[in-house]
Amino acid sequence: MADPRFFHRTGPFSLEALAAMSGARLRDRRDGERLVTDVAPLETAGPDDVTFLDNRKYVDAFVGSRAGAAFVEERMIEKAPAGMALLVAAQPYKAFALAAQAFYPPAPVNPRRALSAVIDPTAEIPVDCDIGEYVVIEAGVRLGARCQIGHHTVIGAAVELGSDCRVGANVTLSHCLIGARVVLHPGVRIGQPGFGFAPDPAGPVKIPQLGRVIIGDDADIGANTTIDRGSGHDTVIGDGTVIDNLVQIGHNVVLGRGCVLAGQVGISGSTKLGDFVMVGGQSAFAGHLEIGRGARIAGKSGLMRDVEAGATVGGNPAVPFAQFMRQIAILQRLAKKKDGG
Amino acid sequence: MADPRFFHRTGPFSLEALAAMSGARLRDRRDGERLVTDVAPLETAGPDDVTFLDNRKYVDAFVGSRAGAAFVEERMIEKAPAGMALLVAAQPYKAFALAAQAFYPPAPVNPRRALSAVIDPTAEIPVDCDIGEYVVIEAGVRLGARCQIGHHTVIGAAVELGSDCRVGANVTLSHCLIGARVVLHPGVRIGQPGFGFAPDPAGPVKIPQLGRVIIGDDADIGANTTIDRGSGHDTVIGDGTVIDNLVQIGHNVVLGRGCVLAGQVGISGSTKLGDFVMVGGQSAFAGHLEIGRGARIAGKSGLMRDVEAGATVGGNPAVPFAQFMRQIAILQRLAKKKDGG
Amino acid sequence: MADPRFFHRTGPFSLEALAAMSGARLRDRRDGERLVTDVAPLETAGPDDVTFLDNRKYVDAFVGSRAGAAFVEERMIEKAPAGMALLVAAQPYKAFALAAQAFYPPAPVNPRRALSAVIDPTAEIPVDCDIGEYVVIEAGVRLGARCQIGHHTVIGAAVELGSDCRVGANVTLSHCLIGARVVLHPGVRIGQPGFGFAPDPAGPVKIPQLGRVIIGDDADIGANTTIDRGSGHDTVIGDGTVIDNLVQIGHNVVLGRGCVLAGQVGISGSTKLGDFVMVGGQSAFAGHLEIGRGARIAGKSGLMRDVEAGATVGGNPAVPFAQFMRQIAILQRLAKKKDGG
Repeated sequence: MADPRFFHRTGPFSLEALAAMSGARLRDRRDGERLVTDVAPLETAGPDDVTFLDNRKYVDAFVGSRAGAAFVEERMIEKAPAGMALLVAAQPYKAFALAAQAFYPPAPVNPRRALSAVIDPTAEIPVDCDIGEYVVIEAGVRLGARCQIGHHTVIGAAVELGSDCRVGANVTLSHCLIGARVVLHPGVRIGQPGFGFAPDPAGPVKIPQLGRVIIGDDADIGANTTIDRGSGHDTVIGDGTVIDNLVQIGHNVVLGRGCVLAGQVGISGSTKLGDFVMVGGQSAFAGHLEIGRGARIAGKSGLMRDVEAGATVGGNPAVPFAQFMRQIAILQRLAKKKDGG
Repeated sequence: MADPRFFHRTGPFSLEALAAMSGARLRDRRDGERLVTDVAPLETAGPDDVTFLDNRKYVDAFVGSRAGAAFVEERMIEKAPAGMALLVAAQPYKAFALAAQAFYPPAPVNPRRALSAVIDPTAEIPVDCDIGEYVVIEAGVRLGARCQIGHHTVIGAAVELGSDCRVGANVTLSHCLIGARVVLHPGVRIGQPGFGFAPDPAGPVKIPQLGRVIIGDDADIGANTTIDRGSGHDTVIGDGTVIDNLVQIGHNVVLGRGCVLAGQVGISGSTKLGDFVMVGGQSAFAGHLEIGRGARIAGKSGLMRDVEAGATVGGNPAVPFAQFMRQIAILQRLAKKKDGG
Repeated sequence: MADPRFFHRTGPFSLEALAAMSGARLRDRRDGERLVTDVAPLETAGPDDVTFLDNRKYVDAFVGSRAGAAFVEERMIEKAPAGMALLVAAQPYKAFALAAQAFYPPAPVNPRRALSAVIDPTAEIPVDCDIGEYVVIEAGVRLGARCQIGHHTVIGAAVELGSDCRVGANVTLSHCLIGARVVLHPGVRIGQPGFGFAPDPAGPVKIPQLGRVIIGDDADIGANTTIDRGSGHDTVIGDGTVIDNLVQIGHNVVLGRGCVLAGQVGISGSTKLGDFVMVGGQSAFAGHLEIGRGARIAGKSGLMRDVEAGATVGGNPAVPFAQFMRQIAILQRLAKKKDGG
């Protein structure tokens, strides 16, 4: 179970209730009234826990699991150990996520305004917000209802956040307009001037960065990630887009809705990603590219050209993924040949 | 126009004045007294705005632009829409940068010493500095005139900054000497001990890091970038060198003057870059390399060897750029062959 | 010598004493009573300094060095300039490290509790700790003896640290249990929720992250590095493991003892590294991998598969290092061929 020093659990829930909230189907209706008290990983789950199987790597752990119940795909039913109740779902990981959210709902926001916070009198802060220790809020800032602002966070002049945002500690925000239910993890930097320099023999000439950062509803931005403001246009992060830690987003970048960017990705200035683009860790994008809706970028790719909607690419420079795999196979074959003779 | 909540504009300026301050030439002298009130990107500029064309990708946007005036290269004159006044420049982006600086000059520093700042009595802080909320300044620190220190920034014992530095929020400085007019963006970490461990079967043995970080005049360091102090020699950043976000600079690294490092670059210990080296994003340098003056490193390169002055290299391991292009072409040809039969 | 504004030196030491504390052997016993007053790099060391030679690149500097004494390997003895006393060691860098630690011991912790620190009354803070300005310590936190907590650091509810930890400024800790003598550099983020989203056509679904971060004794974590808490299992960093700046450690990652991770490495969720694994800068690991004890990963590698204990790998995707070298050689040969005809 989750360490009670750090996490507060609710429940128990009946399997029927979990099936209903997760969109899963009970393999055996007679299990509907069985109660489970917690979620847990395959290896540590016991008879009162519900777990899930989503990755074939872990089938053996599934076969040996002592979990009382599990979310699984249809085709995995036959692998289940005897006595395990099954919640059948097309996407077991998503179904498990919804169950886990029920057991561990986010703590409600406790209205508070730390005495140590320095808040400009022109800032509009609803009374139901939670403003942490040593927070600095400058002139003209507007927060939505129930925002939670972590200790030591700095919100620069005229920044706006929608309702129910959760901002971690040590975050700095400037020149940005942020939607509702946005999560910013510790150390996020948003709105600083982008890297705008005109090359010159006498040294780089600074270009004033005159745009903003616009972040849609339900975005989630990882720890120590940096998002620069636009140079003239705005930098835009679409609704529901999630970004992992240590990612760099350059000026004028536009990310569509529902994009997923893994850790340490870097996107150069003015590149645009359509909706639902998925990007593996440490991939890099040159500037001024167009990446089509639903494209999938393998980890550690180097994008030098536009990518069509729905395409999957990999490599540096990135090519269609099947071609990347062939390049690898050929190189490995040639290297062995030389080896052999 | 730039959002007036975030930016303060001056002007208007006559085209003659803009030509004079940017080194551009008016295509038609009769336009000299026309006034423009703002700078703007090609797509959104109107009849009172001045814009620029610097990237062939945007010629169509230029042809259709409603801008009143534009900075362009000589050879683009004929593409200009009727009625657009032209400011002809060899480097339109640089000329535009100078015009934009005139419209949006950096805000003057307002002398202030936040009551919440903790400043050691032995620190020398000129009265015209702006010291933000919760700043911590330790013993023996010396700031130059008109420095601006962002909220929550920590300046460790004996650190020195020249005049007119602008330090963002949440920055930590220690063991460093910094020149004049240096800009440090939020979350920058300078002067922490470098990664110095002698390998040993019983676990890594720590090597005391006894050098400093020396930063020249007019340097610009991006958000969440880390610059470790030297181990015995100093880590040195040359005058006018600009570094993007999330860059890692190891101990004893020496960067020359006017270098440009894009985001997420990593430079291992004791590597030296000459003056005016340009490095694309996510490139990595092994330790103890010498990179010659004016070298250009493509993005995502992996540098394992020295690079001669003026050379352009790419790939991992990096080779002369033309050779890198041939490697790519050959791999792509071979992969297609296998595909075909 | 190290800048006395930043570093406090002890000594002098006799060469006999240095030999004893570093495990080195004096080449000439008659040198035993010679005193040295400082450590210094080859190029700047003078007659009263002790230096070291560990990298063949610097043999010329060694030959020309004015150092009074040097740690060297047996086989380098003959290259030494006349009059230089030699301390012979199998690992000169390690021996030098131990000598440097004697000259520059870490400053003792001065018990202090800054008046500006906000400390929950339920937190257990030994009186011999040093709590910096504006530190925030939440409910139930427990610190060991002699911990040093940097300015503006935030320690979240129920976090525990062992004795003699040194935590830099601007660090954020939550949901973690940390051992003794651990060093955390400025801007480190530990314990934030990992990147857990189930893909869904309606946008990513958040998975509650219910694990912790467990950090062993003597670990050292670099500036602005991020370590996410586990999703159900814990994220674990082994005893004596050292991690450079800007590294990303995903949820459920397990690092063994004595691992060394260079800058900007990224490790995806649930990947496990055995003891004493060494990872070059900017390498990336896919999720759910097993990397065997003592494996060595070249810089900028992309790990897609498990790695056996003791293996050395490189490339993207990573292959045995010798094979990677052959791939490079073949590509370079093919590229030249095309060039030639």
